[in-house]
Amino acid sequence: MTASSDTPTLPMTGEVISIGDEMTSGARLDTNAQWLSRRMGELGIEIQYHSTVGDSLANNIDVFRVAANRADVIVCTGGLGPTRDDLTREALAALANQPLVMKPSAMAHIESMFAKRNREMPARNRNQAMFPEGSDEIFNPQGTAPGVDITVTRDDGSRSRIFALPGVPAEMKQMFDDTVAPRIMESFSGANHIRHHVMKFFGTGESDMEERLGDMIDRNRTPRVGITVSSATISLRISATGVTPEACQSQIDATREEILTRVGEFYFGDGETFEQQDAIELLLAERNQSLAIIEYGLAAPLGDWFAALGKSHSYVGGLSFANAAELARMFGCDDHEIALATIRQNTGADWTLLVDSYPLLDHTSDKPVEPEEVRFLVTGPKVTNLNANASDTPEAGGNQPEFKRLAVVQTCADQLTECTYEKCVKLGGHPSIVHARIAKAAMAFLRSLLANQETL
Amino acid sequence: MTASSDTPTLPMTGEVISIGDEMTSGARLDTNAQWLSRRMGELGIEIQYHSTVGDSLANNIDVFRVAANRADVIVCTGGLGPTRDDLTREALAALANQPLVMKPSAMAHIESMFAKRNREMPARNRNQAMFPEGSDEIFNPQGTAPGVDITVTRDDGSRSRIFALPGVPAEMKQMFDDTVAPRIMESFSGANHIRHHVMKFFGTGESDMEERLGDMIDRNRTPRVGITVSSATISLRISATGVTPEACQSQIDATREEILTRVGEFYFGDGETFEQQDAIELLLAERNQSLAIIEYGLAAPLGDWFAALGKSHSYVGGLSFANAAELARMFGCDDHEIALATIRQNTGADWTLLVDSYPLLDHTSDKPVEPEEVRFLVTGPKVTNLNANASDTPEAGGNQPEFKRLAVVQTCADQLTECTYEKCVKLGGHPSIVHARIAKAAMAFLRSLLANQETL
Repeated sequence: MTASSDTPTLPMTGEVISIGDEMTSGARLDTNAQWLSRRMGELGIEIQYHSTVGDSLANNIDVFRVAANRADVIVCTGGLGPTRDDLTREALAALANQPLVMKPSAMAHIESMFAKRNREMPARNRNQAMFPEGSDEIFNPQGTAPGVDITVTRDDGSRSRIFALPGVPAEMKQMFDDTVAPRIMESFSGANHIRHHVMKFFGTGESDMEERLGDMIDRNRTPRVGITVSSATISLRISATGVTPEACQSQIDATREEILTRVGEFYFGDGETFEQQDAIELLLAERNQSLAIIEYGLAAPLGDWFAALGKSHSYVGGLSFANAAELARMFGCDDHEIALATIRQNTGADWTLLVDSYPLLDHTSDKPVEPEEVRFLVTGPKVTNLNANASDTPEAGGNQPEFKRLAVVQTCADQLTECTYEKCVKLGGHPSIVHARIAKAAMAFLRSLLANQETL
Repeated sequence: MTASSDTPTLPMTGEVISIGDEMTSGARLDTNAQWLSRRMGELGIEIQYHSTVGDSLANNIDVFRVAANRADVIVCTGGLGPTRDDLTREALAALANQPLVMKPSAMAHIESMFAKRNREMPARNRNQAMFPEGSDEIFNPQGTAPGVDITVTRDDGSRSRIFALPGVPAEMKQMFDDTVAPRIMESFSGANHIRHHVMKFFGTGESDMEERLGDMIDRNRTPRVGITVSSATISLRISATGVTPEACQSQIDATREEILTRVGEFYFGDGETFEQQDAIELLLAERNQSLAIIEYGLAAPLGDWFAALGKSHSYVGGLSFANAAELARMFGCDDHEIALATIRQNTGADWTLLVDSYPLLDHTSDKPVEPEEVRFLVTGPKVTNLNANASDTPEAGGNQPEFKRLAVVQTCADQLTECTYEKCVKLGGHPSIVHARIAKAAMAFLRSLLANQETL
């Protein structure tokens, strides 16, 4: 193959290559390939293969040759460090049949990185400025390893473009978003802007979401909508390309509205890292109310998640005990109701959310857990419109949606109209997600009550 | 290529293939390839490549052809279901140039799986009993998809053996351990037993462990010792093959002793899923003592981990609040000491472990967090031999071991000789592991005190 500067046109096929013995040996889990596959899919590139190869020059050349013959765009990660094990530059030079030559812009950047850290540059780091002749640099703002952008021509005259990035995820991700994605877009259209928007959902399974969304998740839709699931939370990611940022945004706005029409009852917020606890925090802050959490049984994830909210003025704290009797004991009494009332009174919490209780799981097993009944108890201000609420409450996700209907138990009818609401659910699934699913179902229940409380 | 029943000899090279659009598109993270690479490495097979391919017959054949030409042993996962998307059987038949024929033993198993569930077998499930002529079945005790064991002969007469397993991790893992691993071992030696033993460590970094272990982690050592790290906990996995289970076990015993000699100060227990909280639970149960946990700041992982211990009689419960003042407030007082004393008195906890406090982290970032000081306070029975203890205490893992020396503050010198021990550490690292590392360092501190308490 020979180096070339021309580029292919749509539709493009892609391949992701991961380089390093730590991956082929299984010492490290490769997450770069998944991340890149999603990003490239959003650009309209159909990823057909991933390849992983160890630190052997012959094997690297072999993998690049196979990939360049079958993919229009290749992104590889790893092998760009300064040591003898780092063979990506050499492999690309061999593939393109070009010598490695020093690239002054890359050399200057590497020197400046060492100067910034007040360290002398080891001689071996000069290797990182060696590029196959005819290739371009991909700027690395975070590290000393610049990326390589090279186009090779196949025997039949067609071309394949290879972007080589470092394996460090933080560096790889920024370089892809800042430089590689725009270059890919430029190569096939006038569109050189891309915008993403993530919407979050809880309360149904992936297959139900897919059915309700229908043609919205087609691969060829404009803009694209991708669906991913993490411990029963569903994310929809809208990816729009256009000639201006505004053109991207208007595609996103229209698609977001359409999504809300179809699956709005499960929606709880926007943003990659936005979770139900963030939604609850917002609802509480709006109302100037606060929350305490009590968890019984064999987990206490809500205590950890709510603590992590950061500078929250709404979350007062969490308690986890084996059961109601153990909580009461800590307050020196044997009445659970008194213990809960003490917590609310002393902390000033307007709401308490209680999970009773997280079941025992065998975390060494991969076998799905049979659903067991869990009870949620929320105490707080009076909630209106309970019937409407009962029907559109996001139920817990999964394949076994056996729920009891929302029951309302008004425990204390004094002037504060503090009420307790009870809900029982049965949730199972893979042992690794059952506790999280229970915690999320509890939050969904609290959200529905918070959103429907009587205005004072 | 043609089907063949002969087998290659050591040293063998291997390849892992993952099949499915959900992997190439990035919708799902592939963890099978890592698991299989480790297992095959333990058998002495050098994994040189991973390949991932979508649900296209032509691309599947392409990937199998490339792999069969370069690897002695191939394990692939996925594509064995009953639907049109499941193409592994067809691809293997095309590779071996053999027709697909019905295998009665597989058919009988599939029918029995449906009969057991009292369900009628859909016609399409007959596909799962179709095998390339000359291939063997790999029994699947958990599901309807049997695996395929086929050996193909290259143009030069040499051979490659392919094991095709379902993509469902629980099924794949059991089939590999029960059937594939023994067949691989049989194929190159009289050894057909394999035993694994996992030892767990906390308190130093991976590179320090590697340096101390030296030649013990060489790839060619007998038995092999593999090192993996998960959130600052280090696992050493000893894998022994032999002609009898006893031969395996004696290799393991000798290697385990040798490991304890070199890195025993960081060791806390044995078993893949054994964690420091399990070690603490054992220490407490031996002494018939109990523990309460208090966590301040922006996480509360210990409350979740200790709750998950299960039927523990030693762990009484956990409390997480923003800070000492908030905890005191819940007890209706403004004295933190009184709140802690109340917890100990009412719950009957012999020990309290307090973490003050978990820092704010940016979980959207991949950039390492600068170490911040965290304080651990343990209150409990008097501890002897503190100097010895201070020097051999497992310190928190990582690259920034800046620790204050153990301080002892005897807060209450009454007849119970209840003492408070304080330790301050500075811990940083990747945002995804900092909170876990702090929690683990706190447990290591508690373990060292528990192990050295004065006998009453």
